[in-house]
Amino acid sequence: MKVAIDIYGGDYAPKVTIEGAIMALESMDKDDQIILIGDENLAKEKIKSLGGNVTDFDFIHAPDMIEMDAHPVKALKQKPYSSISVGFHYLAKGEIDAFSSAGNSGAMMVGAMYSVKAITGVYRPCITSILPKEDGGAGIILDVGVIADCKPDVLYQFGILGSIYAESVYGIKDPKVALLNIGEEEEKGNLLTQATYKLMKDSNDFNFVGNVEARDVFDSTSDVIVCDGFTGNVVLKEAEAFYKILAKRGMLDDYFKRFNYELYGGTPILGVNGNVLIGHGISSSTAIKNMLLLSRDVAKAKLPERIKNAFK
Amino acid sequence: MKVAIDIYGGDYAPKVTIEGAIMALESMDKDDQIILIGDENLAKEKIKSLGGNVTDFDFIHAPDMIEMDAHPVKALKQKPYSSISVGFHYLAKGEIDAFSSAGNSGAMMVGAMYSVKAITGVYRPCITSILPKEDGGAGIILDVGVIADCKPDVLYQFGILGSIYAESVYGIKDPKVALLNIGEEEEKGNLLTQATYKLMKDSNDFNFVGNVEARDVFDSTSDVIVCDGFTGNVVLKEAEAFYKILAKRGMLDDYFKRFNYELYGGTPILGVNGNVLIGHGISSSTAIKNMLLLSRDVAKAKLPERIKNAFK
Repeated sequence: MKVAIDIYGGDYAPKVTIEGAIMALESMDKDDQIILIGDENLAKEKIKSLGGNVTDFDFIHAPDMIEMDAHPVKALKQKPYSSISVGFHYLAKGEIDAFSSAGNSGAMMVGAMYSVKAITGVYRPCITSILPKEDGGAGIILDVGVIADCKPDVLYQFGILGSIYAESVYGIKDPKVALLNIGEEEEKGNLLTQATYKLMKDSNDFNFVGNVEARDVFDSTSDVIVCDGFTGNVVLKEAEAFYKILAKRGMLDDYFKRFNYELYGGTPILGVNGNVLIGHGISSSTAIKNMLLLSRDVAKAKLPERIKNAFK
Repeated sequence: MKVAIDIYGGDYAPKVTIEGAIMALESMDKDDQIILIGDENLAKEKIKSLGGNVTDFDFIHAPDMIEMDAHPVKALKQKPYSSISVGFHYLAKGEIDAFSSAGNSGAMMVGAMYSVKAITGVYRPCITSILPKEDGGAGIILDVGVIADCKPDVLYQFGILGSIYAESVYGIKDPKVALLNIGEEEEKGNLLTQATYKLMKDSNDFNFVGNVEARDVFDSTSDVIVCDGFTGNVVLKEAEAFYKILAKRGMLDDYFKRFNYELYGGTPILGVNGNVLIGHGISSSTAIKNMLLLSRDVAKAKLPERIKNAFK
């Protein structure tokens, strides 16, 4: 697999992106390639200064960069030679198998929609996060911030997307898909979840197990939790609050350590015609390493092809 | 203050309600009275069997009860001699200062709306929960489950209600009111929070401090957090998930112990013409005790009068 990364992506780039790429090498197969997108000379210098080997990598030269807080649409138009623009150009041509960045996530989202585009039939591509389960496994929650306002049919599709992702990348057989709600009974919830339940309850597209309350998101009731991006983002950030407080108090045990975002690295954008991964702006080298490994796994799983088949 | 409690309210009633009432006596002033609403003979027997003193209490006889899972409107109509119906009757007549129950919360909500009624001008009375702050204080979050779908003007009013509650009952001067959102900037969020921000930003009715993300709900950025009842319920139940996992792992330190709902006992219904408090169905005697003490504090603070003045 040819997995590419934007060397400028993230608050501590390019140092940590190059460092993370060097770390990822160890876990890559012989036929995997890591491609660094950015200023080629700068990338090579950084590799050397970090004790890496320039010949371990491939390079795509992109002299320009999109700032973290730039307006996505404007920046992509004004900077065709930025690492993000160039990355999507190569992805759309099929010359790389996956493209990752911990940079401007709006530009990554817009870039994906304009270059590889949404898969036909998918209303709203979305992003995911991992819920560490008490039993040792991992659950998927989606959406976690891209689509703040959802219609019931959009949530229904999240069920399909999350189910395919959980099965093909995380190896969860016939994933249990639950709707995040404020009561377990069918009639509970807001207008959105009430209507979504009706769509999901007879689904043949995924294994719907009913409503799940936020008190049960870390147990084994479900493998995939579906919600609108506003609610998903709240769930994610509240978990982050607890993680931070526990860390501050020196209370991170084996379970709570698994709430560290660095372990997961990033999320694919589910529902686009290509393997596009977004990482946290504050990504460390460990996070970058894990995003690269996830991008390799996502590419190997042929996620877009599977989603395309489901939406045929 | 004459604070009344439904002896049938809660999963472990009437044992724990009577036990809780006995425990509350110690913290009551001389001129405070606890009134037990339910079968008078049963109440007296229970007091004796628990080693209490019958003369410490007053009684309002109500031979019937509304089951936890009964349909609120039907049950209130069909059971005029139930403890909840009788409680509201006495509250509406002004013969008791506060009425609490850990029973059917739907019946408590509907009963409040039909008997003492919503304060003129308040669109949707709501309920609250406590957010234990890392600095030792307490924050208020509202709504946490009654109004799952809110309009911006309803959220705006939650800002007023929460602010008055925090100041008059929790003694927080000029409480900092924040809007729960998925980004700090004004333009972030879903359609609801974007529109609500516009209403709140120039408010003279409370001290609006902007958006707060779920990662910051336990810090001192805000004293009152406003959100729709769906989101608030999710925040509450996710905190419950962490509390339960920490408890199971024997990791409850002084801070995390404060997530125990028993310490707070219940919530007033904010925005009705009377002091009505709702407790958790699983209430222990400690929770009942604390709900009674909170009902005393709420009555002393003249919460409905303060809210009435704000909505004049």
